[in-house]
Amino acid sequence: MARWRVGRVEGEALAWAMDTLVAEEPLEIRLRWGEGARFARVAVTMRTPGHDFDLAAGFLFTEGILDGLHQVWRLTYCADPTVDGAQRYNIVNVWVQDAGVCERLAAGSRDFRVSSSCGLCGKSSIESVRLQPAYRARPRVPRLDPRVIGQLPGELRRAQRLFDRTGGLHAAGLFDASGHLVAVREDVGRHNAVDKVVGSAFLSGGLPLSQHILVVSGRAGFEIVQKAAMAGIPAVVSVSAPTSLACEAAREWGLTLIGFARGERFNVYAGAERLCMRAGAHPAMQEREVAAPNG
Amino acid sequence: MARWRVGRVEGEALAWAMDTLVAEEPLEIRLRWGEGARFARVAVTMRTPGHDFDLAAGFLFTEGILDGLHQVWRLTYCADPTVDGAQRYNIVNVWVQDAGVCERLAAGSRDFRVSSSCGLCGKSSIESVRLQPAYRARPRVPRLDPRVIGQLPGELRRAQRLFDRTGGLHAAGLFDASGHLVAVREDVGRHNAVDKVVGSAFLSGGLPLSQHILVVSGRAGFEIVQKAAMAGIPAVVSVSAPTSLACEAAREWGLTLIGFARGERFNVYAGAERLCMRAGAHPAMQEREVAAPNG
Repeated sequence: MARWRVGRVEGEALAWAMDTLVAEEPLEIRLRWGEGARFARVAVTMRTPGHDFDLAAGFLFTEGILDGLHQVWRLTYCADPTVDGAQRYNIVNVWVQDAGVCERLAAGSRDFRVSSSCGLCGKSSIESVRLQPAYRARPRVPRLDPRVIGQLPGELRRAQRLFDRTGGLHAAGLFDASGHLVAVREDVGRHNAVDKVVGSAFLSGGLPLSQHILVVSGRAGFEIVQKAAMAGIPAVVSVSAPTSLACEAAREWGLTLIGFARGERFNVYAGAERLCMRAGAHPAMQEREVAAPNG
Repeated sequence: MARWRVGRVEGEALAWAMDTLVAEEPLEIRLRWGEGARFARVAVTMRTPGHDFDLAAGFLFTEGILDGLHQVWRLTYCADPTVDGAQRYNIVNVWVQDAGVCERLAAGSRDFRVSSSCGLCGKSSIESVRLQPAYRARPRVPRLDPRVIGQLPGELRRAQRLFDRTGGLHAAGLFDASGHLVAVREDVGRHNAVDKVVGSAFLSGGLPLSQHILVVSGRAGFEIVQKAAMAGIPAVVSVSAPTSLACEAAREWGLTLIGFARGERFNVYAGAERLCMRAGAHPAMQEREVAAPNG
């Protein structure tokens, strides 16, 4: 878990407090065999640290790569001296008895060119999880009215045509800074809903979305913030919790990240300087004092 | 969307009704170039059909594969005569002007051996989305007491150590048929939490989990059911909605699938014959009459 200084907005008031965020970090799963340094990178998944060996073993088993415990002789964190200290705990080596497991993987009898539109595709190592957005969000642009922000989740909900009938869909909505809905897309996958919204702007020549707000019905993970940054969107509003890596990425890329948006109340995790607060609250000034997150 | 016959359980009563499920189907995204039939499979993602061109374009853009609209000259559904009719709408071709996009992809300057532990890794085409579970669930085993089922989400919630502090974690819990908690794991990713639970059983030599119930804090998609089936788990309980493909998979593999589990009330979507209902409700008999889903 990480501690993070959060701005709590209620109506026109803003107060700062430390809060706990759910930790999110990439885990690279490697299959290793033999005595040497040979290994195959099988996957990088965004996960909450803890029970990493369970995760690696469960992933390899439920993906059909491992058949049974007899194939595994040990699990280790990375001991590669070329890897930065903290990152070593983001790499798990699964050492297999049976070189056939790796050879099958390497020979492409199982092809790993697949993903679930999760923002992590195409990155085969932890270093490459972060894409570099082509667009740069402009500081303080657009100006965000907290009264408008508070209304967005309700607007998104009303625009969701299918939700009431199934109860199982995520939605992503694109709004302008005045709170007018530009596009809404639904999907069983949160990431897909965001890709659909961004894709609709891409296909209509509307990128970058530098004056827009992305509203998502679920949690805000790193990939959601990354997808917004790629499209030049300067503000992301979630009805639920953001992760530690989402907050770090939003800060790094200059995005405003808002969570737990419920009517008049919401939390701001990064980019508070875009909010137009009334007298007594100076988010921009206070933002400069925000402490670095603790891991 | 799909229509599905659902058993509504309240206390000891069970009533059948048709309900609407959120549709979930795989979408294969292909990059195509030139005049010939050459293409590159970029990804298979589980999605809700609709706005598929938006999804394909948005995915390729937010993953950094496409830079701009100038690179794309058309999008089409699959017209391959060797592909089954309905499946053609599960394949989108993105035709690019710039063969360099494809060559870059093919040359591996971006390596797609990555996923997010979503149950879809390693499948580069729609045909191979489904893995074949090694274990077979036994009909009517274990017997499930509806009073026990109703308590499981609350038990899972109590066992979640971290949830209250961050509000952002998914949990997966493994229970025995009497409702005793065997293992609980948390993660920012629902699939990861399930992999952690399964991995813990794998590493302790506890597979198959043929007498156990998997309880998940979020929605039940296809991948969750598939991961349960791989581990031999005969019953999955979700506090939220299942998808169409999750229901179909559960039926095909003989799993009991329960959704919207909230206290005394829950819905059963497949495998109702495992429920021990009192007089007046005969889920097993009625289960045989259940109609095939409408697409």
